[in-house]
Amino acid sequence: MTAYQALTERFQRLSRLGHLSAIAGWDMQTMMPQGGSDARGEALAELSVMYHEILVQQTTGELLAQAQNEGLNEDQLANLREMARQYTDAALLPAELVEAKALAGSRCEQAWRQQRIDNDWQGFQRNLAPVVDLARQEAQLRAQKLGGSPYDALLNLYEPGMTSQRLDTIFGDLTQWLPELLQEVVAKQPSIASSQTTRIFPISQQQALAQAVMQRLDFDFDHGRLDISAHPFCGGVPTDVRITTRYDTQEFLSALMGVIHETGHARYEQNLPPQWSGQPVALARSTAVHESQSLFFEMQLGRSKSFLQSLHPLICQNLTAATDLTLDDLVQQVQQVAPGLIRVDADEVSYPAHVILRYEIERALINAEIEVSDIPELWDEKMQRYLGISTAGNYRDGCMQDIHWTDGSFGYFPTYTLGAMYAAQLFNAMRDQQPEIETAIATGDLSPTFNWLKENIWQHGSRYSVDSLIQRATGETLNPHWFKRHLEQRYLGR
Amino acid sequence: MTAYQALTERFQRLSRLGHLSAIAGWDMQTMMPQGGSDARGEALAELSVMYHEILVQQTTGELLAQAQNEGLNEDQLANLREMARQYTDAALLPAELVEAKALAGSRCEQAWRQQRIDNDWQGFQRNLAPVVDLARQEAQLRAQKLGGSPYDALLNLYEPGMTSQRLDTIFGDLTQWLPELLQEVVAKQPSIASSQTTRIFPISQQQALAQAVMQRLDFDFDHGRLDISAHPFCGGVPTDVRITTRYDTQEFLSALMGVIHETGHARYEQNLPPQWSGQPVALARSTAVHESQSLFFEMQLGRSKSFLQSLHPLICQNLTAATDLTLDDLVQQVQQVAPGLIRVDADEVSYPAHVILRYEIERALINAEIEVSDIPELWDEKMQRYLGISTAGNYRDGCMQDIHWTDGSFGYFPTYTLGAMYAAQLFNAMRDQQPEIETAIATGDLSPTFNWLKENIWQHGSRYSVDSLIQRATGETLNPHWFKRHLEQRYLGR
Repeated sequence: MTAYQALTERFQRLSRLGHLSAIAGWDMQTMMPQGGSDARGEALAELSVMYHEILVQQTTGELLAQAQNEGLNEDQLANLREMARQYTDAALLPAELVEAKALAGSRCEQAWRQQRIDNDWQGFQRNLAPVVDLARQEAQLRAQKLGGSPYDALLNLYEPGMTSQRLDTIFGDLTQWLPELLQEVVAKQPSIASSQTTRIFPISQQQALAQAVMQRLDFDFDHGRLDISAHPFCGGVPTDVRITTRYDTQEFLSALMGVIHETGHARYEQNLPPQWSGQPVALARSTAVHESQSLFFEMQLGRSKSFLQSLHPLICQNLTAATDLTLDDLVQQVQQVAPGLIRVDADEVSYPAHVILRYEIERALINAEIEVSDIPELWDEKMQRYLGISTAGNYRDGCMQDIHWTDGSFGYFPTYTLGAMYAAQLFNAMRDQQPEIETAIATGDLSPTFNWLKENIWQHGSRYSVDSLIQRATGETLNPHWFKRHLEQRYLGR
Repeated sequence: MTAYQALTERFQRLSRLGHLSAIAGWDMQTMMPQGGSDARGEALAELSVMYHEILVQQTTGELLAQAQNEGLNEDQLANLREMARQYTDAALLPAELVEAKALAGSRCEQAWRQQRIDNDWQGFQRNLAPVVDLARQEAQLRAQKLGGSPYDALLNLYEPGMTSQRLDTIFGDLTQWLPELLQEVVAKQPSIASSQTTRIFPISQQQALAQAVMQRLDFDFDHGRLDISAHPFCGGVPTDVRITTRYDTQEFLSALMGVIHETGHARYEQNLPPQWSGQPVALARSTAVHESQSLFFEMQLGRSKSFLQSLHPLICQNLTAATDLTLDDLVQQVQQVAPGLIRVDADEVSYPAHVILRYEIERALINAEIEVSDIPELWDEKMQRYLGISTAGNYRDGCMQDIHWTDGSFGYFPTYTLGAMYAAQLFNAMRDQQPEIETAIATGDLSPTFNWLKENIWQHGSRYSVDSLIQRATGETLNPHWFKRHLEQRYLGR
């Protein structure tokens, strides 16, 4: 057996452990009763220790070195590169730190579910502090080995190749024009007549609508399902992708747009290269590229007038309380811009402000410039500065609103806005290359769109670097210009 | 660290892997879309290989030997005995056989779900043959080491200490009096007036009823849940017990009785000794003892007139199509004896015939006296002999009706009837020891019953051998007399 073959077997095994972790993790958030959480947390932590043990065996490093000289083809070399990245990322950490992180994260996340409801910052803070402490330890270990700041080291786990220096340039560019654009949009947009009556949209009808829309978006129900969780996510494995949403009986659009968003993630997963299944090169390229797919679905496609034309009849058919909704009303509601407290409910114009706020706080937190107890005040201050809203005392809808920090996923937030930019750039390139696609979308024919995404993004898995993937698809690396142009076109009609 | 401590850590780790296997297995039967089955089967097989690798490490054997001399107390010695049993059972099998079994079993089981619907014996036979072949290999390896017949070696995995010789005596006793008793009961019982109208019991109402009954039976919903699967089962882990049922909108009693049955399993699991959690001694004693709890709930309690008195109003409250059901009708329907095709729908008088039939076939199959292709003819012949019913050509309701053989669980079937006998013996002993319990049951007060079970069975886990556990609870080891007496009392009023 060659070293490369031995490595593919080892990573196949790891992929299977990852499968079990993904399903047990999904279950924890959708099905598990509260009383099961301690034992589940311990079982998942044990699995992550075993995963780590297998990955960082001394022989993995040796096999990686040997395989370099085995005359591999380009696909195999790309797989080897991704194997080496996983190995290096993992070999840096002692097993005890991996287990402690998983345990502290699981405890904090589980307790957060109730603490958020109770607006219990004190209780949450006690659980978050050890999570932050362990994340700092991790960041320092990584930074020592890879160079750069501690925060950059965590950022790279989600977005290989990205630095906070580059991010500062990109977000700097954004903060130059975004606040003004936001003001202009809010001032210009027509006000929505507030409805006199409260309408009720039963969950069963919203579920039927969600399934119909997922079908329209070619979600493969033989390889996935839709369920309910407190915080929507896309989980599972490529052969069985689990997406979730949450329903509000008084308002159906946020659940519906959430489903369109998660379906974007899901279709990327469902269309990753099956010929490399179980190997690192078959994984999605990065968190930002993943987000570019969900935002392509939700923002570029889902909230466009062309798509809404074909979504409109589906809404009227499925929701008895929405039979009189006009297409114009729908477009207006879906494209409404209104700075608010909640990131996941934010429109795409104010969304980057939520991300930059979190980026600044988590960077300072990981680089040990602030402490957990400083978060609420900073949060309030930045919310006021960027969006003109105070969150003082309202932890529930402030710094306790997101799941990310609860399990130690620091470095993740920036990928949302990177994803939004990639999505705009991809959509623009697709339209440039095949101008007829937009007409097809308006008539409800989405197959040209999906074919383009499959050909340019999905089928490549992690074959190319992020920059190279985007360059091949659009002719250039990340260029925030297309995001700006998208917002100006949609919201200011320029 | 002592050898015993090292062992408890190792078995704790194994217990956590078992947790993940239990949840992923539950998911496979309740939630997973069909297209996910191959990857899931591979992931579960990988996990079972890893479990096996950890368990059978050479050091496990060495530690077991060392720990014998560490002055352990009785509980620790009991734990050590159960560790040694798991180790010996597992160390016998090469890892390749473990993986091949898991893979073949998972494939056969998944395909069976559709093949059963299609009555596709040919397709099923192709998948079952390798499952049987691997089970025979396993049985021979075990028998070589432990003595006895190959079949006995598999039987012992479910019922430690049981032999087919002892089983032949017990089942021989049964076949002496059961056919005559069955005839007498059928002849004597009043015929049920067939309803002129088809009633519909919506699944949502049946679910609400099931939850209410589970609550009445003290099922802990903070540590478990109820779902739907093709074949009802009790899975999950003690801190998160997952039971399932299946609903028929035209008939509610079989789902309801199924839920009561699985709740018996669940309460045993939920009340296993928490102080030994994660250790082998904290596991349920045996498959037959497990079944004695579900049958205690379903047969001794659930179908008794005393319990039905308090169940009756719950049924009328929850099912709009059953508001006019009288208590007498309910008792008559629940205690009706009618030999039929389906084991899981069988009444308790004809049930042992279904078990003996399967026992005879699987024993011959594993001892290589017959082949898979012989099953349908033997099935038909034995059904005619024991119950006077032909199943020729009807595989769906014949030899393809059960899940057990699909994943290679040979040796399991006898435990159903052993469980029924233990249940009768336990109920009789409880009534003897505390005559006031039966009055309490009729008034809806089940706590004395559950306290008795907790004290005599649940809290002991695997602390004692089966014989010793039953002896301590009832004053004697298994005595089929109490089962006979129970049937005579309930069905012939003797």
